[in-house]
Amino acid sequence: MRLGFAGLGIMGQRMAANLLRSGHSVTVYNRTADRPEVRALLDAGARVAQTPAELAAGAEIVGICVTDGAAVAALLHGPHGILGALRAGQLVADHSTIAPAQARALAEAAAAAGGEFLDAPVTGGDRGAAAGTLTIMVGGSKDGFARLAPYLRCVGKTIVHVGPSGQGQLVKLVNNFIGGIALAGAAEGLWLGLRGGVPLERMMEVLSAGSAQSVSLQLLADRMRSGDAAPGFSLRNRLKDMDLAMRTAQELAAALPVGGAVAELFRERLALGEGDLDQSVLVRRYLAQGENQGAG
Amino acid sequence: MRLGFAGLGIMGQRMAANLLRSGHSVTVYNRTADRPEVRALLDAGARVAQTPAELAAGAEIVGICVTDGAAVAALLHGPHGILGALRAGQLVADHSTIAPAQARALAEAAAAAGGEFLDAPVTGGDRGAAAGTLTIMVGGSKDGFARLAPYLRCVGKTIVHVGPSGQGQLVKLVNNFIGGIALAGAAEGLWLGLRGGVPLERMMEVLSAGSAQSVSLQLLADRMRSGDAAPGFSLRNRLKDMDLAMRTAQELAAALPVGGAVAELFRERLALGEGDLDQSVLVRRYLAQGENQGAG
Repeated sequence: MRLGFAGLGIMGQRMAANLLRSGHSVTVYNRTADRPEVRALLDAGARVAQTPAELAAGAEIVGICVTDGAAVAALLHGPHGILGALRAGQLVADHSTIAPAQARALAEAAAAAGGEFLDAPVTGGDRGAAAGTLTIMVGGSKDGFARLAPYLRCVGKTIVHVGPSGQGQLVKLVNNFIGGIALAGAAEGLWLGLRGGVPLERMMEVLSAGSAQSVSLQLLADRMRSGDAAPGFSLRNRLKDMDLAMRTAQELAAALPVGGAVAELFRERLALGEGDLDQSVLVRRYLAQGENQGAG
Repeated sequence: MRLGFAGLGIMGQRMAANLLRSGHSVTVYNRTADRPEVRALLDAGARVAQTPAELAAGAEIVGICVTDGAAVAALLHGPHGILGALRAGQLVADHSTIAPAQARALAEAAAAAGGEFLDAPVTGGDRGAAAGTLTIMVGGSKDGFARLAPYLRCVGKTIVHVGPSGQGQLVKLVNNFIGGIALAGAAEGLWLGLRGGVPLERMMEVLSAGSAQSVSLQLLADRMRSGDAAPGFSLRNRLKDMDLAMRTAQELAAALPVGGAVAELFRERLALGEGDLDQSVLVRRYLAQGENQGAG
């Protein structure tokens, strides 16, 4: 296949590399082209497009993986945007995490141009992206999903067509929303045990084998052991997804009190200047209480 | 070994059966003795004691597994209580979930009588109890733990000495606290997806393979599929443990805002008369919002 791929961040560069490895002809586009990760892909056989429109011109499928909805809109719209170059039968697969409502609007705009825009957000982190084992949740038509599937199998392992346009994004928000709350719960629980004098390792021996076990608990405990705050998933992006989930819930008139409270705790850390650190710095909120341990 | 075991509820009757199966001499005590589960144990070779004191009289180790702190106190104190009959070198292992502060107080009372009271709460549910694969977290002295270990291995698989008296209970509260918050987060997240029109099965295909995965999410999804509200873990007991965790946090001057909010959501369902149903009925709080779906 002739493929285009826009957005060569931590996830995108690994996904593009796997597309190349699968033997496809791949053209890439990145807002800032003069970066080592772009050059590495060119060395591996990719070509580079100067504009999103040029990327779309020769491709059967265009993949997108950028930071947020504004970045997706910037690629799609405008005189050099993907939508202006889109022809009948072309597919756009958006792997970014954006609002379901925006995904539906972009799908309508693409359909007006004769193409199809499918939301196909991913989960599995940089390791899953490198290994080609991402979980991908797709929103769009059955036909579009069937045509997209061979492309998706180059970058992911668990690939699920969850429903019509926007529902891939909705499930992604649900995934990150549940994970965000579980992370906050793990932070409070581990802090309670630490405050009571139980060492982290003793607790984790039990909790890993008990009903508290979760991906978030394991992630948090690993970070607390290592003390590493370099972002695997940044606090800023975690909050972005919590806020998208809460806004989507508002549109659906769904009241989610725990999610609302947890979003505010992440926002507190953002206000303290920790947005670009790993989401696990949320636990600092609790550890800081230890500073006044003798005050009671 | 000559063993005593008090409390033959869902967990205790299965634990006592495993002690018998391991070839030990077991005497049992239950507040109401004329019950099928007591008779089944007698048929399997157990003897029955008429009072907690009689249970303690001939036993090297006395196990306890009852509902709450008041029930544990009732067994230990009073003219026919275990403490009055306790002799030097005897061990009491309490598998109930009670406040760490109460466990420490009972340990002091037992030490005054020359014995040792260790907190040894369990997790793993009725299935873990039946299979003898419970996870057991023990608070008490190193020597007491070493002497208790052969007994514990008859009923559990992952057995961890987490620290001095009370810390077994603390880790149990941490486990259930983290699980309770994860359950509430899963309920909110799944509801957001359902409200947006994604079928539960489609969501779970993705979430089971993603960063949202947890024991609580899986438990909740299974209950939502089956519609079964018979208690595996009752809402009343879930709230009891959340409240014990919050009270312990207060004693430690630890602020846990998410835990406090989640406890109130469970309390709301208790107030609606659902205390004896499974904890997963928390999700009804969200499903009820669907009744007014057209109102916005």
